[in-house]
Amino acid sequence: MQVNKNKIPVGILGATGSVGQKFVQLLADHPIFEVAAVAASERSQNKRYHEAANWFMPTAIPEQVAKQTVRACVPDLPCRIVFSGLDANVAGEIEQAFARAGYLVVSNARNHRMQADVPLLIPEVNADHLALLQMQNLGRGGIVTNPNCSTIGLTMALKPLHDRFGIESVHVVTMQALSGAGYPGVASLDILDNVIPFIGGEEEKMESEPLKLLGTMTADGVKPADFAISAQCNRVGVSDGHQESVSVKLSGEPSAEEVIAAWQQFTAEPQTLALTSAPKQPVHYFHEDNYPQPKLHRELENGMAVSVGRLRACKVLDYKFELLVHNTIRGAAGCAILNAELMVARRLV
Amino acid sequence: MQVNKNKIPVGILGATGSVGQKFVQLLADHPIFEVAAVAASERSQNKRYHEAANWFMPTAIPEQVAKQTVRACVPDLPCRIVFSGLDANVAGEIEQAFARAGYLVVSNARNHRMQADVPLLIPEVNADHLALLQMQNLGRGGIVTNPNCSTIGLTMALKPLHDRFGIESVHVVTMQALSGAGYPGVASLDILDNVIPFIGGEEEKMESEPLKLLGTMTADGVKPADFAISAQCNRVGVSDGHQESVSVKLSGEPSAEEVIAAWQQFTAEPQTLALTSAPKQPVHYFHEDNYPQPKLHRELENGMAVSVGRLRACKVLDYKFELLVHNTIRGAAGCAILNAELMVARRLV
Amino acid sequence: MQVNKNKIPVGILGATGSVGQKFVQLLADHPIFEVAAVAASERSQNKRYHEAANWFMPTAIPEQVAKQTVRACVPDLPCRIVFSGLDANVAGEIEQAFARAGYLVVSNARNHRMQADVPLLIPEVNADHLALLQMQNLGRGGIVTNPNCSTIGLTMALKPLHDRFGIESVHVVTMQALSGAGYPGVASLDILDNVIPFIGGEEEKMESEPLKLLGTMTADGVKPADFAISAQCNRVGVSDGHQESVSVKLSGEPSAEEVIAAWQQFTAEPQTLALTSAPKQPVHYFHEDNYPQPKLHRELENGMAVSVGRLRACKVLDYKFELLVHNTIRGAAGCAILNAELMVARRLV
Amino acid sequence: MQVNKNKIPVGILGATGSVGQKFVQLLADHPIFEVAAVAASERSQNKRYHEAANWFMPTAIPEQVAKQTVRACVPDLPCRIVFSGLDANVAGEIEQAFARAGYLVVSNARNHRMQADVPLLIPEVNADHLALLQMQNLGRGGIVTNPNCSTIGLTMALKPLHDRFGIESVHVVTMQALSGAGYPGVASLDILDNVIPFIGGEEEKMESEPLKLLGTMTADGVKPADFAISAQCNRVGVSDGHQESVSVKLSGEPSAEEVIAAWQQFTAEPQTLALTSAPKQPVHYFHEDNYPQPKLHRELENGMAVSVGRLRACKVLDYKFELLVHNTIRGAAGCAILNAELMVARRLV
Repeated sequence: MQVNKNKIPVGILGATGSVGQKFVQLLADHPIFEVAAVAASERSQNKRYHEAANWFMPTAIPEQVAKQTVRACVPDLPCRIVFSGLDANVAGEIEQAFARAGYLVVSNARNHRMQADVPLLIPEVNADHLALLQMQNLGRGGIVTNPNCSTIGLTMALKPLHDRFGIESVHVVTMQALSGAGYPGVASLDILDNVIPFIGGEEEKMESEPLKLLGTMTADGVKPADFAISAQCNRVGVSDGHQESVSVKLSGEPSAEEVIAAWQQFTAEPQTLALTSAPKQPVHYFHEDNYPQPKLHRELENGMAVSVGRLRACKVLDYKFELLVHNTIRGAAGCAILNAELMVARRLV
Repeated sequence: MQVNKNKIPVGILGATGSVGQKFVQLLADHPIFEVAAVAASERSQNKRYHEAANWFMPTAIPEQVAKQTVRACVPDLPCRIVFSGLDANVAGEIEQAFARAGYLVVSNARNHRMQADVPLLIPEVNADHLALLQMQNLGRGGIVTNPNCSTIGLTMALKPLHDRFGIESVHVVTMQALSGAGYPGVASLDILDNVIPFIGGEEEKMESEPLKLLGTMTADGVKPADFAISAQCNRVGVSDGHQESVSVKLSGEPSAEEVIAAWQQFTAEPQTLALTSAPKQPVHYFHEDNYPQPKLHRELENGMAVSVGRLRACKVLDYKFELLVHNTIRGAAGCAILNAELMVARRLV
Repeated sequence: MQVNKNKIPVGILGATGSVGQKFVQLLADHPIFEVAAVAASERSQNKRYHEAANWFMPTAIPEQVAKQTVRACVPDLPCRIVFSGLDANVAGEIEQAFARAGYLVVSNARNHRMQADVPLLIPEVNADHLALLQMQNLGRGGIVTNPNCSTIGLTMALKPLHDRFGIESVHVVTMQALSGAGYPGVASLDILDNVIPFIGGEEEKMESEPLKLLGTMTADGVKPADFAISAQCNRVGVSDGHQESVSVKLSGEPSAEEVIAAWQQFTAEPQTLALTSAPKQPVHYFHEDNYPQPKLHRELENGMAVSVGRLRACKVLDYKFELLVHNTIRGAAGCAILNAELMVARRLV
Repeated sequence: MQVNKNKIPVGILGATGSVGQKFVQLLADHPIFEVAAVAASERSQNKRYHEAANWFMPTAIPEQVAKQTVRACVPDLPCRIVFSGLDANVAGEIEQAFARAGYLVVSNARNHRMQADVPLLIPEVNADHLALLQMQNLGRGGIVTNPNCSTIGLTMALKPLHDRFGIESVHVVTMQALSGAGYPGVASLDILDNVIPFIGGEEEKMESEPLKLLGTMTADGVKPADFAISAQCNRVGVSDGHQESVSVKLSGEPSAEEVIAAWQQFTAEPQTLALTSAPKQPVHYFHEDNYPQPKLHRELENGMAVSVGRLRACKVLDYKFELLVHNTIRGAAGCAILNAELMVARRLV
């Protein structure tokens, strides 16, 4: 394999799984990162990547990766940054081993998200939480995580409202896409002509992760935001794109126009720095009365923007609206890559 | 056509449309009603029913109806009860004409639902509201309506909670089936691999109709219940069965067991009278953590029961749960037929 | 467990799998058979059936079976007939062990279908092939198999044509339902908005099994029919019901009316004997130009009839038509049960 | 509207319909054509295009077109080439009027396809048929049509086989996408969990159009190819991409390798001329045993290539294989645009 010396070599842990494949796909032709190593479980090791992965992305396997030999998930990879698409049942120990060995682990796994000294990061929301990295005391190494897919969409829409008006409570019901369950994931017989009103662990994540994300960075760590979130999570027969029906209670009493303006004007460090994967506008508001929709809007800004629409008064809280996030791009691998781009821009690598 | 003299002859207005077809299907072999007349718009008149209707029910057209000649929607039908599956754009005037002519109009249309002197009726919820009929001053004639499909499921689940614990507010997000939009209804290109977060007029109905249904019958009419409802309505790619994610705030502070017991013990006049179409148990609670589901539970008790499950604490209101109702049976034609059965049992016909 | 002494006790091998569950469902309330034993792999043994089976039929587990303890698949079951829904990778040896031990094995597995001394049986097609049983020389024991799901539909439609006109060649392209792949079977991400043009081993079965089924019983065994079959098998996003586009070349030169009459007049021993699971009419012809369809016709005659339609001239062979068979009822468990009913009627049990 | 003087202005007839929208989408940023006029039926006239069109393409309306005023379909448009996405019930007369007025009509409508003096054109298959244009005797005006969507895919795969080996007969069964029916097209209730074995007029087109396309250009017009085609057309629940199971009988006796080589080596005038919309390789052969699939391969070469796979012996004809074509791109608007590009390159405009 020929490595481009002008790019930063990166590794992918769990490279053959569904999140791993998305990392491979999104990193093809990336201007600053180049995949220098793919690692996976024993079953895949020592095979060529194109033989080991049951590739199911709609675009072909990037040539630069297809013939790489799959390695073991041990910290001897020829890179400093590793993206982790590992399953939660193995991610914990492997990621720690890499971090201790001096690797910067950019993880999509849930294992370390709520750990006090680990940044749970959405670059547009809480870039300042990267300060937690120092508390890990691992020298050049460390772990940075991105939130759960549904959380990312929700929190990006809540952030400008929280900053401008203060959030008092949030009620959210999700209609989540099949790709969120990985591969093979949901059996076709279970979801055809059906809705499944349960996704294990999802509601717990949605009710806790946004509070850390919207929390305040202090000398002692992150002081979480203090409001209640109620989440109900459903699986629907959609390939990609998590749809969410959200209601919020706000401390201020903004008009609908002010709420929409808060979204439209929302911009943050990734936009200022013009990071490669950053959407130009993190949150798009649609005025059409039946938007956003997964099929029409999930690919907006290469899948990195969040779409909202239908803002109107809520008779129980203050406002209700509809939200859409591409769960495997902005909600997973794409967010992790943006996290890494931010760290490079901040010279943390 | 041979009419069974032991049965009560009934007519169907809008008999060729999707609700009309459901009436025809559900009334086949009904022990007390017999379809004596089918009426529809000019386009269908004077054709045999099987020629006029683009029949799309999965069971064959009942023989007793197939060869009947479709009549005009004018009050000269050989029956006293008419079921109305008319479109809202014509239902208003036609139903009034029939009522004034002495017919008992049992309607699924939305036109007269919120009219002060018209019973908006779910037999298990507010049978006493039938007293409104007298206020119509139409002698033997009158109009009785059933609520919107999503409202029926929701209100049947709320009724025992309201009676035992008092409801302070309700938040509901629906995932509604395609059949709710009639036929041809939703274009396949619009819903395949998609969610549509808008159903015209639906949220307004869900936020108002339950208050009338749960209201108190007084000498001056129905005094509506006094609590806030917030509804967000989505269309999903499911054939039949509206799924709803509900949160409620209760005045009392019941335990989860008490809430479940309220549902399981809920029974009302249709059950006492053992009406033909009445479910044995109006509300079924499932303990499985991923139930109810449209595909598995919509046919429960011939589609006339409401399924609930996943009762758990809500961090914003008090409890949240999942609900399912068969939208074209319990939520439409089946409810109207039960309404008529109740009126027969009460000798209002 | 209380066993009904007026019924014939039967066992189910592989009772927790998808075919096994269908056996359990279809045998509930069967007038002559009663499930006396459910057996499955080690993982399920000694559990109650309702705990061992990941039940996914749309109707509840029959009470009579729910609490039975799952046994091992060894020939000590309290019955003489066993239905086998075993996976092909274990069915071969287990079924032989049961047959040698004197059990009558009525199998849906493919392992012994093409074995010279094993009847491959569709009661309407080749009841006389049961004579092969004697060639097994297993005393009261023996193995009888039903064909592949797609084969059953096709062969039932071919049988009356072969008898009356002689078949020279058959070309068939299938669009097969998801339930044909068992559970969990096809991943939802693979089939949503897609067609998969491959089903392992299916084309080979469709090109060989009908020839045995339509073969002639001789003293030396079955002499297979002598014509060519070409099959192309596709998976589509349908829950139940295999659709087939068929072309046939016939020796005779029947008119379209004669072909349709051959189907409509087709009747056989199961109809004469009025076997419990036998359809009144094995093959239904529809004159509508867009019938049959899986959603509308798969449940015809409790899923035991085959639907055909659209007979018209074929420019390459003689006639082309469309065919539908319920793959898990007529095409699997239902056919096996009918096979057993035939053997009981013939006093082979 | 600012028109780019370096580009050729074109008009779109039926611009608001589903084919018209595809023209608008595919012509955005086209290097040699620019949309100078959009025309549609009376209902849309004088509205801005973005108001008149119920836009349902997944990408936004091209800015250059969005604000254009929709014109009447009369031959006073500021351009020489018009693309016709008109419905067949009006296309006949309107297209003739434009042709007589000196416009070059590049039509996707079926009306003139089989007319003796009208080229039915796939640039890779029969570019020489453009000679028919002169027989129209309309000076600079004329009509050129592209074939039916299913025909295009089939004929592109047949062309190299016919040239090298000679075709004796073809049997094809299609599984066609929903977008082929236009918008709103197929009702969701009709196709969810279903297959519809009928598409009006489709089989007739598939059995005749390929013969004209593969016919020989003579002084008297096109002498059609002389072999039999049998087509059976089904609609399946797929958004885009027609799948076809094909069998062919060939005059020569090529090996499978030779057939595959014929496809892989197939190249024609659009490739030599490097026309803008031409795929680099018109027919792609896949060796995977479950390819091609609509979801994975419809976008190949921007939707302009045809995918084939699974070549194997057919027991009735000689070979069978699976084929996929993007029905709204290669099979409709994209083919028409390539037709126009060819005519520009040949200086026929």
